[in-house]
Amino acid sequence: MDNCIFCRIIAGEIPSMRVYEDDCCIAMLDINPAGPGHTLILPKQHFQDITAVDDATVGHLFSVARKIGMRAEFRLNADGFNIVQNNGAAAGQTVPHFHIHVIPRFSEGPDMVSWTPTEPADGVLQAVLEKLTAEEDA
Amino acid sequence: MDNCIFCRIIAGEIPSMRVYEDDCCIAMLDINPAGPGHTLILPKQHFQDITAVDDATVGHLFSVARKIGMRAEFRLNADGFNIVQNNGAAAGQTVPHFHIHVIPRFSEGPDMVSWTPTEPADGVLQAVLEKLTAEEDA
Repeated sequence: MDNCIFCRIIAGEIPSMRVYEDDCCIAMLDINPAGPGHTLILPKQHFQDITAVDDATVGHLFSVARKIGMRAEFRLNADGFNIVQNNGAAAGQTVPHFHIHVIPRFSEGPDMVSWTPTEPADGVLQAVLEKLTAEEDA
Repeated sequence: MDNCIFCRIIAGEIPSMRVYEDDCCIAMLDINPAGPGHTLILPKQHFQDITAVDDATVGHLFSVARKIGMRAEFRLNADGFNIVQNNGAAAGQTVPHFHIHVIPRFSEGPDMVSWTPTEPADGVLQAVLEKLTAEEDA
């Protein structure tokens, strides 16, 4: 994928700050981090988003995310970490090469990942549930 | 874990709106969703956070998250989805039983997961990289 910035980084055409690497993936620092230690895990093979990735690779990549998060706790004294993975422009995915964000969090730090909880009216959740479970084969 | 609300939900002592279930986990609607179809995936076994979970279980649970996200695209016409997994109170984890959020996103909808990118001063990223890679065995 000549026009994919992450493929070019993996190929070494663009420099990166690698935290971890194996046969399947690399982990590198985000150059515009939400906070200290914000790391991206990306497979060496190009997949647009998680819907294109096989289960074994999904499992490996999130296990690497776990390892990176634990390393941030030990090495950076993080108090916790978020694992965030965005699929589609509507979900905030800015590079269409599957990647996982690991964002270390610090008790003193700002909220770095958030959403606004809602209180759905009566029946709204039930209607959603029925759509999601209408057929078990999908 | 008698005092864990998610263990009580899994045991059936507290009702839930289940989207999916297998031997290892359940997926249920979040009752205070960020948006339509916001679903939680949780293992039946109690783990405080991802640092306590074995790699095989991590892999299975995120594969289920992938499946739920794809179902939201097909059934709810979502345009994408976020997978978010918070570890530790500092990271916004409110229930200390490992869980994964799947948040369907819609092109017309509000931003539901976000952070503020930063531009670290010269040397800051390099210093973080050195801490994270100082020893390869951790």
